[in-house]
Amino acid sequence: MAQASIASIGDSEFDRGTALIPRGPGVYDATLSPGWTIMNVLNGGYLLALIGRALGDTLPHTDPFAVSAHYLTPSTPGPAVVRTEALRTGRTLSTGQASLFQTAEDGTEVERIRVLASYGDLDALPDDVRTAAKPPAIPPLERCVSSADGPPPPGDFAMIDRLDLRLDPATVGWAVGAPSGLGEMRGWFQFADGRDSDPLALLLVVDALPPTAFEMGLKGWTPTVELTTHIRCRPAPGPLRVALTTRNLAGGFLEEDAEIWDSADRLVAQSRQLARAPRD
Amino acid sequence: MAQASIASIGDSEFDRGTALIPRGPGVYDATLSPGWTIMNVLNGGYLLALIGRALGDTLPHTDPFAVSAHYLTPSTPGPAVVRTEALRTGRTLSTGQASLFQTAEDGTEVERIRVLASYGDLDALPDDVRTAAKPPAIPPLERCVSSADGPPPPGDFAMIDRLDLRLDPATVGWAVGAPSGLGEMRGWFQFADGRDSDPLALLLVVDALPPTAFEMGLKGWTPTVELTTHIRCRPAPGPLRVALTTRNLAGGFLEEDAEIWDSADRLVAQSRQLARAPRD
Repeated sequence: MAQASIASIGDSEFDRGTALIPRGPGVYDATLSPGWTIMNVLNGGYLLALIGRALGDTLPHTDPFAVSAHYLTPSTPGPAVVRTEALRTGRTLSTGQASLFQTAEDGTEVERIRVLASYGDLDALPDDVRTAAKPPAIPPLERCVSSADGPPPPGDFAMIDRLDLRLDPATVGWAVGAPSGLGEMRGWFQFADGRDSDPLALLLVVDALPPTAFEMGLKGWTPTVELTTHIRCRPAPGPLRVALTTRNLAGGFLEEDAEIWDSADRLVAQSRQLARAPRD
Repeated sequence: MAQASIASIGDSEFDRGTALIPRGPGVYDATLSPGWTIMNVLNGGYLLALIGRALGDTLPHTDPFAVSAHYLTPSTPGPAVVRTEALRTGRTLSTGQASLFQTAEDGTEVERIRVLASYGDLDALPDDVRTAAKPPAIPPLERCVSSADGPPPPGDFAMIDRLDLRLDPATVGWAVGAPSGLGEMRGWFQFADGRDSDPLALLLVVDALPPTAFEMGLKGWTPTVELTTHIRCRPAPGPLRVALTTRNLAGGFLEEDAEIWDSADRLVAQSRQLARAPRD
């Protein structure tokens, strides 16, 4: 994609979309941007990253390590406020809580999402790595499929324009009416404006791909009930590989696991969400 | 193990250990029992089950669906209080928050654990199951190894007496100084007094086995930073199969994934925790 310049961290669409205005200690005003919707719903990872930015400002440690979010009511584009609280501050880890609120028509604040998170300093961690996990088998970026290559998605998918997603051809059958039936989705992630990913961005990335539900032949929205993300490493510059897996669709719910791997073959983040299966 | 009778749900060691006395709306007194310690530390799953009992009482829905816990400070046997709050109540799901406190010597309350959890009604879920996951390959119960068969564990392991754990012989090398080096632990779980497992007990079971760290050759405590558990199904009566996996030990932290399978070959619960690796 030709572009005049690469957005720097701070000046990018992601940073502008997740920008906060401190109102007082532990209180941050925000504007939820319609540019981050999928099927007319604000993306859960985008909301999590915005909340994560507030927590990184409140807590003495700046990097998310473990972030647990319960989604209470759907958010809508427009004004919002994030209220944070430090629960415990330690030498290497701090834990905080955050809530995203929006104001209803009657003027009351309605809570959208509540988050518990433990933060630390990724750069202070020792370098030792003993990983049995292997990066996902995914074709090189240039052999993967951009949304620009396929049919236009149904409905409003504004967030797609913020991202440069290239999906594994083995996981795009859904886009042409031929889902594989497997609970899988894989692809390469970059921001469309060239911003590098950092730990905060990883909170978005775990929820940025189309859902595995599409490849399982399910149509419709899979609302997230709960999403927990572990950030294990600052990502190296360059495109990220994302692999989603669902193994257990049962009782009207499904889990979706995500792994993010960077250009240095490090497993930089993992997440699991519990989501409601689309209603038939 | 010969026993005169099987404890019923309500009368068992687990129920007595996690018993609560309501003090007022959303406030429950408890006594953290020394019978549920491992290496002199109260087991995280035991604490989670106790908190989960309080949330099931506070919320209109009784079964945990997704429970996210951040462990702030170590708990000690003795008096404690659980304070709960309903955040959102819906038709099929409710979400609440709970905190476990203990009183310090100076009389102040210190928060031990904070939990966010979404509850529902497992019996109201449709029966459809579309699972790609397979039960763990584990030998039959009678070929697995009880703690009574091996050398006595070092230090205080009181919780072991509450349980009838039978470990896969392939994952007990650590007990005889020959750890496999693999991040695995598998076994069969039952309560020693014969109590059947129910959804609340599953919150204990995900944290009841020896840690994978032992088989990886690491010695010492792996304190839990964060633990998220999904309960997907009411377990059928009978022994449960538990499989733990660690794939990414890096930077002084490790993740530990748990799966619990019941006698009907259903995947009844999954969890992932982020823990600190033992210090060398």
